[in-house]
Amino acid sequence: MNGDRRYFGAVEAGGTKFVCAIADERGVLHAEARFPTADPASTLAGVSRFLIESSRAIGPLSGIGIGCFGPIHLDKQAAKYGVIGNTPKKGWNNIDIVRALCSPFPCPVGFDTDVNAAALGEHRWGAGKDVGSLLYVTVGTGIGGGVLVEGLPLHGLMHPELGHLYPRRHPADTFPGVCPFHGDCLEGLASGPAIVARCGNELKHLEPGHPQWDLQADYLGQLCAQSVLALSPQRIVMGGGVMTERRLFPLIRQRLLHWLGGYVERNEILDAGEDYVTPAALGERAGVLGCIALAVDAAGAASRRYPTSGP
Amino acid sequence: MNGDRRYFGAVEAGGTKFVCAIADERGVLHAEARFPTADPASTLAGVSRFLIESSRAIGPLSGIGIGCFGPIHLDKQAAKYGVIGNTPKKGWNNIDIVRALCSPFPCPVGFDTDVNAAALGEHRWGAGKDVGSLLYVTVGTGIGGGVLVEGLPLHGLMHPELGHLYPRRHPADTFPGVCPFHGDCLEGLASGPAIVARCGNELKHLEPGHPQWDLQADYLGQLCAQSVLALSPQRIVMGGGVMTERRLFPLIRQRLLHWLGGYVERNEILDAGEDYVTPAALGERAGVLGCIALAVDAAGAASRRYPTSGP
Repeated sequence: MNGDRRYFGAVEAGGTKFVCAIADERGVLHAEARFPTADPASTLAGVSRFLIESSRAIGPLSGIGIGCFGPIHLDKQAAKYGVIGNTPKKGWNNIDIVRALCSPFPCPVGFDTDVNAAALGEHRWGAGKDVGSLLYVTVGTGIGGGVLVEGLPLHGLMHPELGHLYPRRHPADTFPGVCPFHGDCLEGLASGPAIVARCGNELKHLEPGHPQWDLQADYLGQLCAQSVLALSPQRIVMGGGVMTERRLFPLIRQRLLHWLGGYVERNEILDAGEDYVTPAALGERAGVLGCIALAVDAAGAASRRYPTSGP
Repeated sequence: MNGDRRYFGAVEAGGTKFVCAIADERGVLHAEARFPTADPASTLAGVSRFLIESSRAIGPLSGIGIGCFGPIHLDKQAAKYGVIGNTPKKGWNNIDIVRALCSPFPCPVGFDTDVNAAALGEHRWGAGKDVGSLLYVTVGTGIGGGVLVEGLPLHGLMHPELGHLYPRRHPADTFPGVCPFHGDCLEGLASGPAIVARCGNELKHLEPGHPQWDLQADYLGQLCAQSVLALSPQRIVMGGGVMTERRLFPLIRQRLLHWLGGYVERNEILDAGEDYVTPAALGERAGVLGCIALAVDAAGAASRRYPTSGP
């Protein structure tokens, strides 16, 4: 140990890039690296090298947190724990990401979806510090939702996969959608790749009068409404590449109210909802900081399981 | 107290009827009564009389559990705790049901949605004993969903209102729907009143080849799929008047698989799903027994808060 300070490793495994970091338990970063999400062998080799070399330079790791694109196997009792499931990302199906990255380290490991990790990060250090029931939505390469209930990530049978809910089709939208499983689910209609496939350009390059802005707000407003009705979060935090376009937020809040149809009479939602549907305070780092939180919690859980006799 | 035995009161406030009972903590009923859901004053007077007279005859109540149709105010810190919200049921908006029924009794009160109570009942004594993460869906006068996460009812901002999710419209269905808030949400398209309004008859009187069977299975299959993607329950238990038609179950399981599109590769769902989407084991009594569980838990919580010096 380096004095009182403990260090934790974080790996946010996203659809476009892997964001890796070493931080202390307050979430202060001491090293950071990014790797494009390529084939599993080369991507994981780069990440593994970063973890090993940084921990040599900075100090031994007290825990590692991995937040990974879904679907993933989270049941610790199952043989497939730590393994990536039936993903549309080529080559990544059935990859044991926890074993690949953590076997050189004797420390406890926290493993969850990238979006559950981001929800945890926003809960600990960002836009969800004051609520226990939180939804984090990312809109980027894909669409995903992480859910905290009473401060803890929601798993259940697997974990939420909100990006694959079907919205009602906007009457002006004839685009078939890009999801290889579902075609025109939310991810198929409103993810970054869907926008580019439909409009030939990213949202940020489309003029304010372009119909995609309304489509985008409508579909994401439906996602928020479906989430309110199913999960009843106390706040919805939205991040990811597409959500850096801040003018989406008021448009989404309007469509959320439209789709709820006056049924949910909670002031948090009705009062324009500026605090209810809100940008990620940690921005791009929500995921990787959430992985630090996963690592800290895993280390805490492990030390509670095996108490030492020391102070 | 009558020896060691403790008695609990239960009120399941449903859209069609109020089911009331006195039971012990094992869920054995000692008295039961039903009252049609009419105007609040006369309905609540009947229920109140039952509780007072039964407890005089059987023994003092150690707790009361109320499971009520939504939306309701569940936040114990809020002024509106115990009050019914913006319901489509005439006259019931803003009724303080907890105060109306419980003020004569000094015992602790558990208050939740009728469907969260039913989920709790099935978890304690029915089809969900072996899972902590459970969805209970009722399809009757309305459509509602109760959710347990790690064995505890999900609240968050309010509580789930799954019946008001919008399904994709079945291409053969031109019925506008009966929900006063949303028209063609799930409750508007597939509740008991929606079936009667569309077909002129209840589902049980429609011949097996009637197109409503396929519509009904498709909409409820969508509800199950949306729930899997949002809530990831370990089991879906279905009850309510419409679900007494057992031939719906295999049809719903087929449509669930269709709507998931091969994305959720969990054997629990893929292996025909007979255990995954399953009838309420407590049948019509899921709700009222769940209210007994709410009452028992409220009494337990109260005695943990104010421990006695006795054994």
